[in-house]
This record gives sequence, C-alpha cells and structure tokens, in this order.
Amino acid sequence: MSDATKILLDESEMPTQWYNIIPDLPEPPPPPLHPGTKQPVGPDDLAPLFPMALIMQEVSTDSYIDIPAEVLDVYRLWRPSPLYRARRLEKALDTPARIYYKYEGVSPAGSHKPNTAIPQAYYNAQEGVRKLTTETGAGQWGSALAFASALFGLECEVWQVAASFEQKPYRKSMMETWGATVHSSPSPLTAAGRAILEQDPDSPGSLGIAISEAVEAAVQDPTIRYALGSVLNHVLLHQTIIGEETIRQFAKIDETPDVIVACTGGGSNFSGLTFSFLREKMAGKINPTIRAVEPAACPSFTKGVYAYDFGDTAGMTPLMKMHTLGHDFVPDPIHAGGLRYHGMSPLLSHIYELGLIEAIAIGQTECFESALTFARNEGIIPAPEPTHAIAAAIREAEACKESGEEKVILTAVCGHGHFDLASYDKFLAGEITDYEYPEEKVAAALERLPQI
Amino acid sequence: MSDATKILLDESEMPTQWYNIIPDLPEPPPPPLHPGTKQPVGPDDLAPLFPMALIMQEVSTDSYIDIPAEVLDVYRLWRPSPLYRARRLEKALDTPARIYYKYEGVSPAGSHKPNTAIPQAYYNAQEGVRKLTTETGAGQWGSALAFASALFGLECEVWQVAASFEQKPYRKSMMETWGATVHSSPSPLTAAGRAILEQDPDSPGSLGIAISEAVEAAVQDPTIRYALGSVLNHVLLHQTIIGEETIRQFAKIDETPDVIVACTGGGSNFSGLTFSFLREKMAGKINPTIRAVEPAACPSFTKGVYAYDFGDTAGMTPLMKMHTLGHDFVPDPIHAGGLRYHGMSPLLSHIYELGLIEAIAIGQTECFESALTFARNEGIIPAPEPTHAIAAAIREAEACKESGEEKVILTAVCGHGHFDLASYDKFLAGEITDYEYPEEKVAAALERLPQI
Repeated sequence: MSDATKILLDESEMPTQWYNIIPDLPEPPPPPLHPGTKQPVGPDDLAPLFPMALIMQEVSTDSYIDIPAEVLDVYRLWRPSPLYRARRLEKALDTPARIYYKYEGVSPAGSHKPNTAIPQAYYNAQEGVRKLTTETGAGQWGSALAFASALFGLECEVWQVAASFEQKPYRKSMMETWGATVHSSPSPLTAAGRAILEQDPDSPGSLGIAISEAVEAAVQDPTIRYALGSVLNHVLLHQTIIGEETIRQFAKIDETPDVIVACTGGGSNFSGLTFSFLREKMAGKINPTIRAVEPAACPSFTKGVYAYDFGDTAGMTPLMKMHTLGHDFVPDPIHAGGLRYHGMSPLLSHIYELGLIEAIAIGQTECFESALTFARNEGIIPAPEPTHAIAAAIREAEACKESGEEKVILTAVCGHGHFDLASYDKFLAGEITDYEYPEEKVAAALERLPQI
Repeated sequence: MSDATKILLDESEMPTQWYNIIPDLPEPPPPPLHPGTKQPVGPDDLAPLFPMALIMQEVSTDSYIDIPAEVLDVYRLWRPSPLYRARRLEKALDTPARIYYKYEGVSPAGSHKPNTAIPQAYYNAQEGVRKLTTETGAGQWGSALAFASALFGLECEVWQVAASFEQKPYRKSMMETWGATVHSSPSPLTAAGRAILEQDPDSPGSLGIAISEAVEAAVQDPTIRYALGSVLNHVLLHQTIIGEETIRQFAKIDETPDVIVACTGGGSNFSGLTFSFLREKMAGKINPTIRAVEPAACPSFTKGVYAYDFGDTAGMTPLMKMHTLGHDFVPDPIHAGGLRYHGMSPLLSHIYELGLIEAIAIGQTECFESALTFARNEGIIPAPEPTHAIAAAIREAEACKESGEEKVILTAVCGHGHFDLASYDKFLAGEITDYEYPEEKVAAALERLPQI
C-alpha cells in the first residue's frame, strides 16, 4: 500500500516486451480455418491482409516479443499510463475494499487502442505499405489508427458504423484532423456495402459490415493493408503493455489484486489488462478472480455458443473458433458501440473455455448510474464501454461493504467519454433503458453459423 | 537535457505552496476602485461575491501561500502535470531549437482551469456557501467549476455564452454530468440578461454579459457566491502551481528557457506558467524573453488602452486598471472563445506596463495551421486557445532554423480540443478566415470607458 493517488512509472521503467500468453496455456487455441478448404490457415493466406511481421506475431510461440524502439518512442507520448487508487470512490461507497483502476484515456486518441495502432502502423510502414483501411464502431479504434498513421506517414481510410457516424460527428473530425478519410458504413464504395444498402438503404450498420468493407478495400491493391483493432492474437499481444505496467505498479506498492474486472467487446482491453496477471495465476503466485464484463444486449460469453464463425458479416474472413452470437447478428443500439460485436477473441474464448476466467453481463442503465458515481468522485468521465467494468467494480466494493472484506479490486478505465456525452445527455434525461436479451434474434443468427 | 519525452514529477515532489508575485514587483499594481465612490475597494466590498479566504488572497502580501491539504488531495487526481519535450515537432520543423510544452489537458475538465476551480470550491465550502454561480465562454471554466463543485458538495449554476452554448452542446452535457445547471447567456433569468435580450433577442452573448448574469444571481442570496475563472489576483495565484512545477521539471533536466510563449485571454494561463520564471528573472538568475500571445481579433495588450474599466458588460464589478478594448466591446466570433474577453488581468497588465513581458497578436488561420502540424506530430489535438501559443512557438523554432540558434522554447498547451472539433472541421473545409482588427468598433467602445 501507499498513500499515493496515482501510482506512476518513469519512462525508464516502461516494459520493453509484450507478453504472449499462448505458450503458457495448458493447450493451444484451435487454429483459424480457411472458409473454402476448412483447413488451418497459414501465414501466406493472411498476407493480402496483414504485413508479415504481424502475421508472425499472430502465430508466435515466443513468450515475450521485443517492442521496437520506434514504437517505444511513440508509446512515451503517454505511457506508462497511470494506475489510480480510487480513494474518493471508495469513500463515497463507504467500502473497506481498495479499488484501483488503470487509466488508458491519457492517450492522444483517448483509449487503449493506440497500444496496437502504433505497432500496426509501424510494421506496415516498415514493409512499404502505403495505406491502411479499417472499420470503427464507437470511433476509438478509427481515431487510434488515424493518429498512428499520421505519425508513420501512412494514408488511412476508415469505415465508421453508420449509427456512430451520425451520433458522434466529432470522432470523424478527430480522424480528419490527423489526416484520415472517413466513410459512413455501409457505403456505396464497396460490394459488401452496396449489398447491404440494397436491402436497407437506412441500415445503421454494424462492426461486422464495416469490417467487410475495409477488408474488401484492402485486398484490391497490394500497397494497401487492413488493420484490425481487437480480436486477433497480435492485437491482444500489443495490449499486454497495459498489464505488464500494472504488474510493476502493484509491485511498487506491494499490493496484489483479489478481483480483476474489465469490459469485453472483441476482448483486447480485457486481455491487455489481465494476461500478465493470468501468467502469475497459472504459475501459482497469485489467485485473483478474473472476470469479463459484457453488455447484456450483446453477451457473447454468457449467451453465445463456442463455435467456428466468421469475424465479419459478409463472410470474408477466415473461420475462427470463438464465442459468437452469429456473424450476421446485429446487436441492439446500446451506447457502448465498442462492445457491439457478435464475436469474441478466439484466444480469449479459448481461455474462457479452459476455466481460467469468468464472465458476467450487465445492462446499460446500471452502467451509466455507476459512471455518474465515478465521474462525480474521481473526476474522469468514462466512455460507455468501461462503465461496464466500473459497474462490476462497484458491485464488488458493495459486496465488501456487506461482508467487511478488504478486497483489492483492479479494473481498467480504457477510455474517456469526451465523444460520448450525447449518451450521458440521454441518460440524464431518463431516455436510456435496458434492452431485453434478443433471444430469438440470436437463435436465428446461430442457425446460420457456417457448417464445419 | 535528458532523453525523456515527458519530464514527470512524483506526487511527493508536487509544490505545496502557490507563488504570489506581487511583493516581488518593483511597485504594486493600482488598486481596484468602487464604481460609485471611485475609492479603493476594501475586503468588505467584495464579501457579497467571494468568501473571505479568497478575498484575503486577493490582497495578500505574502510571497508564498500554503495550498490546503484537501486541495492537494484533489490536485493529485492529475497533477503534477507532464512537461513534454516536443521531439517529433522539432524534427518536423527541422529546427535546432528544443521545444518544451507544459500540458494541462490531463485534468478531468481538460484544461488548466481546475487549478483554481478546486481551491475556489474548497474555500467556499469551508465558509458554508451552498451554491456557486459563474460564466463560461469556451466552456473550459464552467466545466472546471462543475467538476470542482461536485467534489466539494456544492451546487453549481453556469451561464454559458450563447454562441458557445449552441456550438458546443457537449460542454453543457459535461457540466451536467458533474451535476451542474447550465443556461445560455443572455438568459431571461436575470435583469442583465433581459436587458440584452430586449435589444437583441438573438444576441450571441459575450463573456462580459455572462459575468453580469452570474454576478447578479450571486449577490441576491447570502448562501450563493460567485466564482471567476481568470483575471483576478487569487485566480492567477492558484495557477502558479503550473510554473512552480515547470521550474522543478526544468531543474531535473538542467535546462533553462530562452523564450517563453503562452496565450492570454484573461491572463491566468499565461501568469500560471510564467510568474515563477519572472521571479527568477527579476532576481537576475535567468533572462528569458517572456511573451504573451493574443488573438488578432481581440488584442487587449497590443491594441487596447491601459485604463480603469469594468470587468463585465453591465458595469456591476469594481473598476480595474487594465488593458482593455472597452467593457462593451463584443469581439468577432473567433473559435478561441476563451480569448474573447475585452480586458486583461489588472496584475498582468501592470507587469506588462513595467516592461517585464512582451505581447504579440496572431490571426486564427495561422493558429489552426500550427495546430494541425502539432497534432500530426505530437498527437495531442489542442484547444483553439493554446493554438496561439503553439503558433508563436513554431515561429520561434523556425527563426532558430534560420539563425542556427539552439534556443530552448517553453510553451503551455493549456487544454485539449476534444470539444472544439467543429472548429477543426471548419478549418479543414477552408471555412475559417482571419478577422480584420475592428478598429472603429474598439474606438467606439473606448469612448464609453468610465471617467475616473
């Protein structure tokens, strides 16, 4: 323990390697399959989409991978990020628990997403790529890639889910300020987008559709590559900088977490925070409960099936074994756009199946209530995604008040809500409700899972 | 020098006193005058507006004032703030200069304003005040006071300049998230507001008008006080935490600034950064050029007169000797709303008259161009106000490229631009132009200066 509010690391203490959890797992995750042959996908199959350096990270069996010096240089613009002790929140909750949160909103793009956008831009630039394409839901990932592309001299083209494009015009402005081009998705620029628009000219879009568009745009030109902001092994790998820092920060104050809670959409924020602690747990050094928190309206862990499915709506990606609600399931329009993804990282799904982590689903009104309590005590206004983690942390702290336990709770506030205040407006006006879990819609989508 | 990107202080190294420059000046600033008697205003005259602790700070002759422990506790949520070496910007400009910027956008409200909002809320709460009223232009100050009020259990009512209220709806949402009430100004809620609306129902408002409304609302109830976000001595005092930290950060890397540039609206950001360096300069220890940067459309230093004038439009405040463009001058609608104030801090005006600092005015297109260069290299998207400082720093760095001088340039990025992206949109669309200096409008306003 310490009497500090922020536990900081000096730049010289910043980790210089990412942690790859795969070699430490009791068994390896199932491989991705080619959608045509149903055979495991090899590095060459991925080459039209990603640079070879990232493909090799995707399949690496090394436990640690050096972070390039050029990437460390950019990380230093905001990293190491602070670990906060939420003293005011603890006081407001009158809990004996000690609550810590790792805050990633200090990055220029406002979330944890630049942790992987920077190395992705770097490796692409190294291999002579001219332009990156991607999708964005809440806007956090598109902003991160626009920022990263600006720093490494790449063009950047972003397909932003139409609902978010309308609701958050300033995310587009932010990306354009960094020099990117932004389209509303579905767009008439791709076959995938045109097919959706033909069926529904007013489609609100989905992450799956936007991924189809960005992938289609990338594979048509050898100087263009695609970049994905979550789900894949190399993305989770890059995010482990979060947990590697947090482990060092906890060591500084001689604390050990009893419970770790973090939100999951595609899984990169959760994995980034927890994989380093999972390593220590698997080694028998610590024994925290590690719990994923997903939105009740898009609960891929707690309600989805564990099966091979596509990562996108149009079925252009390899088949991945993961928790899924069906590749063409379009979640209700909750405000946590970053958590509206039909699937879950295959690696994280595998870890869940191994019983190493738990999962719960929380409705959005409880999340916004928790966010107000958080903002009015800690100051920071969180993005709708991490309000799920905050709600779970508050549940734990309140249970400690009941039981008298002095648990150490760790969570991640993976981004600020400066571009999400329209959601707060609606909540304050009483216009936000919870969605019923769409059981029938999911059942129908699951019937359309590819046959393996 | 150091090879770090961010020069950080630990919480334990945070200054515990504010610096009061007044006793170190060769002569004291002229006193504020009562608008009726034209006699110097005493503490009792200010009691309906401010708590006694702040009034005593306003007139203090102590060189250092202890920061209360409760205020230090809140400062620790984001302070000490980072001092950045702008390595990527230097490289992009190909300059031999070394550019440093102190970044205040890390505060929950996104600017330097909480440095004074927190102690103002604290002292008011200590003296039993129930509610604070204030004005806000760009929205930074209102956000800061809403945040501070939430933390000290005070109600908060904000009059936001109508033009900004329309352009930046999410500033209102942010204030409401922290529990504040927000009105567009001019409003029908006050006599001052109604008088303006009668003349012009579509008035875009001004800081001077909003101040009149907030003051009027405060003086009518003894449990309500008013809070001002700039201009006054106690506000500048609180902001010296910025310079006190920066001095310690420069000492850590054994650097000394040759040029310090910072933007000025009411003067609190500039004073916060520079007063500690001015102390060292007056003591003969260092000799930097210290330069205020104001907008060409509202140039109180470079075009205004040094005279007694009102702080607000309706003439409700004491008369203060300051650089002014006339209390009823309404500046053109430049995007740096925080710099659209007719006057300048009396203390800073006095320091300018003493020849201790310089001033220049820059047009907004050069500022936005500089902001894009900054954002695409350093990542941070600055608020429109500090783009003036960045433009001046870039001018200096480019002069160094010409001359070959390795000058050390220090500037302040006093806030992020997350709520100002509509301005960036306009700039990217080519819709932002410079305004001619409104010579005739100022001349007319100056004819209406109060007679002393």
